[in-house]
Amino acid sequence: MSQYKAPLRDLEFVRNELLGMDSFYASNAQWNEVSNDLSSAILEECAKFCENVLTPLNSVGDEQGCTLKDGKVTTPDGFKEAYQQFVEGGWPSLEAPEEFGGQGLPKSLALAATEMVGTANWSWGMYPGLSRGACHTITEHGTDEQKATYLHKLTDGSWTGTMCLTEPHCGSDLGLLRTKAEPNDDGSYNISGTKIFISSGDHDMAENIVHIVLARLPDAPKGTKGISLFIVPKFNVNADGSVGERNTLECGSLEHKMGIHGNATCVMNFDDAKGYLIGPENRGLNCMFTFMNTARIGTAIQGLAHAELSYQNSLAYAEERLQMRALSGAKAPEKAADPIIVHPDVRRMLLTQKAFSEGGRMLIYYIALFSDISAQAKDDEEKERFENLLAMLTPIAKAFMTETGFEAANLGMQIFGGHGYIAEWGMEQNVRDSRISMLYEGTTGIQSLDLLGRKVIMSGGKLLQDLITPISEFCDNTSDDDMAEFINPLKTLLAEWQTLTEQIGASAMSNPDEVNAACVDYLMYSGYVIYAFLFARSAKVSKVKLAEGTTEQAFYEAKVYLARFYFQRLLPRTASLALTMTSGVENLLDDAVNPF
Amino acid sequence: MSQYKAPLRDLEFVRNELLGMDSFYASNAQWNEVSNDLSSAILEECAKFCENVLTPLNSVGDEQGCTLKDGKVTTPDGFKEAYQQFVEGGWPSLEAPEEFGGQGLPKSLALAATEMVGTANWSWGMYPGLSRGACHTITEHGTDEQKATYLHKLTDGSWTGTMCLTEPHCGSDLGLLRTKAEPNDDGSYNISGTKIFISSGDHDMAENIVHIVLARLPDAPKGTKGISLFIVPKFNVNADGSVGERNTLECGSLEHKMGIHGNATCVMNFDDAKGYLIGPENRGLNCMFTFMNTARIGTAIQGLAHAELSYQNSLAYAEERLQMRALSGAKAPEKAADPIIVHPDVRRMLLTQKAFSEGGRMLIYYIALFSDISAQAKDDEEKERFENLLAMLTPIAKAFMTETGFEAANLGMQIFGGHGYIAEWGMEQNVRDSRISMLYEGTTGIQSLDLLGRKVIMSGGKLLQDLITPISEFCDNTSDDDMAEFINPLKTLLAEWQTLTEQIGASAMSNPDEVNAACVDYLMYSGYVIYAFLFARSAKVSKVKLAEGTTEQAFYEAKVYLARFYFQRLLPRTASLALTMTSGVENLLDDAVNPF
Repeated sequence: MSQYKAPLRDLEFVRNELLGMDSFYASNAQWNEVSNDLSSAILEECAKFCENVLTPLNSVGDEQGCTLKDGKVTTPDGFKEAYQQFVEGGWPSLEAPEEFGGQGLPKSLALAATEMVGTANWSWGMYPGLSRGACHTITEHGTDEQKATYLHKLTDGSWTGTMCLTEPHCGSDLGLLRTKAEPNDDGSYNISGTKIFISSGDHDMAENIVHIVLARLPDAPKGTKGISLFIVPKFNVNADGSVGERNTLECGSLEHKMGIHGNATCVMNFDDAKGYLIGPENRGLNCMFTFMNTARIGTAIQGLAHAELSYQNSLAYAEERLQMRALSGAKAPEKAADPIIVHPDVRRMLLTQKAFSEGGRMLIYYIALFSDISAQAKDDEEKERFENLLAMLTPIAKAFMTETGFEAANLGMQIFGGHGYIAEWGMEQNVRDSRISMLYEGTTGIQSLDLLGRKVIMSGGKLLQDLITPISEFCDNTSDDDMAEFINPLKTLLAEWQTLTEQIGASAMSNPDEVNAACVDYLMYSGYVIYAFLFARSAKVSKVKLAEGTTEQAFYEAKVYLARFYFQRLLPRTASLALTMTSGVENLLDDAVNPF
Repeated sequence: MSQYKAPLRDLEFVRNELLGMDSFYASNAQWNEVSNDLSSAILEECAKFCENVLTPLNSVGDEQGCTLKDGKVTTPDGFKEAYQQFVEGGWPSLEAPEEFGGQGLPKSLALAATEMVGTANWSWGMYPGLSRGACHTITEHGTDEQKATYLHKLTDGSWTGTMCLTEPHCGSDLGLLRTKAEPNDDGSYNISGTKIFISSGDHDMAENIVHIVLARLPDAPKGTKGISLFIVPKFNVNADGSVGERNTLECGSLEHKMGIHGNATCVMNFDDAKGYLIGPENRGLNCMFTFMNTARIGTAIQGLAHAELSYQNSLAYAEERLQMRALSGAKAPEKAADPIIVHPDVRRMLLTQKAFSEGGRMLIYYIALFSDISAQAKDDEEKERFENLLAMLTPIAKAFMTETGFEAANLGMQIFGGHGYIAEWGMEQNVRDSRISMLYEGTTGIQSLDLLGRKVIMSGGKLLQDLITPISEFCDNTSDDDMAEFINPLKTLLAEWQTLTEQIGASAMSNPDEVNAACVDYLMYSGYVIYAFLFARSAKVSKVKLAEGTTEQAFYEAKVYLARFYFQRLLPRTASLALTMTSGVENLLDDAVNPF
């Protein structure tokens, strides 16, 4: 069974020392009461809940899974009680607006709770996780009445939410969807159709479930421009806000899947279920992007979560397990063999996991800070600049963090040798749980097309420039000799990144398929460069601390060391990616040859 | 549920057109009756059995797993009956010597049956698979009496075999093992101890099971030089060869594991079980290497098996699944969307799987042919040359084929999107089943140490030279202009491979840990170069066929195309590996910093 200790010290480092969140809060009218002491107290309390309540339920969820009987879904033992504790602790409401009963805290702070919950028990965390997306969607697109009806309950956690997009014949291509919405005289709609892969679609943890559902109005245009968005509650809501009659929708079956067994992945059947239009007719997909972007950041965290869990557990194992002697001579001669952590190849696997975990943490809070800054932007120009950064960083974080999270989960398992394949250690569960993250909320391929096609190329390179600018500025402002090992390669990569982009952009002019042929390598390349920037910043901050004198010398030395490891052992992967992404579409698609 | 169609055409290509097995058999006294017609007939018959009998049992094995009740292990429904058919068809005896009832066919032919069986149903194939290793070990190291007692029954399949190495506290480091062997007056030994992870350790498919067990004699030297090897049958064997009394050993429990559920992975308890020394006292590990090398090649095939299964099933899905339009314009305008195979990124994932499958197939038969040639070598010098090649290629095949097989299994799943995560499609089972291959029979790290440390460096580079020589000769003999796209990069890589080896060898002189720090990247690099050689050969053979005129133009064009894909999209990974493997041990191990 895997263990988890919340990385509070690293969260402090990333949030405040690296990104200066504490000073951002202090300088901001809305959050100047969010002191560092308050943040720390909140996170310490959350850490206890995660370590003591959620972690032990992680393997329970995997073993038991969810069950469907007589139309009702039951979650694994302890899930419901843990949710009750979570609600009583006020955890669902951290970032929600105060007018709906929320605590109005910054997203960048609430995200740390999300990270800890997700790392302790990803399947469990998906139940409250989906509610956040539903809240954001209703807050942004709902009427005042809808906000009044749903947001208090979603905020205090008595109700949860879902997002209902996928149908059996359409996932990435939502333009094909068929679920129908027929208008009623009272302004409501009757929703009919089948949705699949609905995470947290039904369960026994909350008194109501608010489904956010994509469907088509009668005579709606074909394709993505004829899709509208609806709120469809499991139980209708009475005029006084109380839970009323059961709506005509139900979970038809639970999927048998590779992992995340503790989360109910439902086939949801809507049979003239009563629903309410949210946002303008036929603009549902645009509204749903609010939900999807929240979910994409949520899924990015999953990459970090599995990398962190894998790292912590394989580190503990590597320090205990005795096997062979170091090639350079016995390191623990008093024991039957050396602990395997002495072997450089084992350390390579540990440091890779650590780099993907800490790199992911830096990226996700970098994004969260932009999200808070953007919400408080002083003018449209500033808002646009930060939204552009978010638009670029969201697909990179989603795909790069989940791909590297899966790699980390596998490396952690590898350190356990054959024991890693056995259920009792929890490492194989971690691999299985992590595997979904590259698929749902848009596969790695879909994120890559979004990044390279819709954003970089369609903006004529402008969005890339917006992303590169702060990195270039950082390089220009870092002239210390002892930072050259980081700054020089980073500068080279920034130039190469732009050249590669121009090269692909030029080929795409004559053949748009070139974008599809290059996109995944391009996204992975971008991810490695952004992590390089963040690790360089981390090294710079740490070197300053070391130079100033600190009682935490070992902590900051490890930071500098990890940055160096990253630059020397992981960043060189860009060399291969640069070659393959520019190798052209002809080696994938040639009308004259059927290669299959 | 995954489907499987045996790749008979590709087997014909690799075995005969690429490697010339048919002419090798024809020119060889022992096998000159093994005509191409005979080989084809055998493989076609085997293909039917695999497609019709074993494939449908693949998901059954996963769902049901094995059960242990009252000390007896029961295999999934249909496994026993399929084994009976396998035995009746004479399949266990293809390569076994005729004096023990075998058919005396070349290993390189029998291997094709192993490949098909393993691809159709890996868990099932492990039952007869382990018997082969037991046969080889007894054939090579057993006394005449032992051969007479065990080999006929193992050959005809009425008994099966196992290898019992691992104990709870030792896997990679067998020097730590504790199982004891106490001599009896009658020349037998009493074996006591616990072995774990024993594949096919107990089951209901055969009337007896022959365990090949590592144990220590009293007063044996510590470490690996005090280990002896024993034959320990589940049932004692009567003087007339019939099955006698139950021996005092049993399956204590079955492991709950990530995949290969259809195979019984047993904890085996030996409690003064009667055993018989095989090979010299205290030289058991050397004898066991016969078994381990067989098992390593067997596991290498697993990489190929999962890549092939993944490729076949994801190709079928990609041709059917409609989702989005090609960026370059609709390819199937009459349908609601284009089949996803039109998207270059999907084709990249398909071609990667195909390259790892066909590359693995070329490598494994290349090795099998050397094994046959070595067995028939005309003098010691020739034998040594081929054994050196085998010594180098075994760890490369084991680790590289399983790492790339796992990558392929994941790409196949990725093509299915969210559906890939759902059990019913069989793709997630394929990923789970494949994951063990990088762990058992020596992890990727252990294989890499064996390659770089024990072989390349300890031979002063001689073994590497033996491996490179035929590749260099191929390059020198291939001067056609239209092969330059393959030959030029291959020549560059051969030179780089040697330079890298010298560089690491030199650093290892001052610090032996450098070997451990570089080994996995070095092995992966070596694998990519060897596949490049094989793909270049494949392209050359195909170009000759195309130039001569052929009725199978599409087949050979696809071969040339895949080779080009490999060179442009996969081989560039060597660029990163070259950088990381020479980045030095300091970024992994520095006495002044604790990076964890």
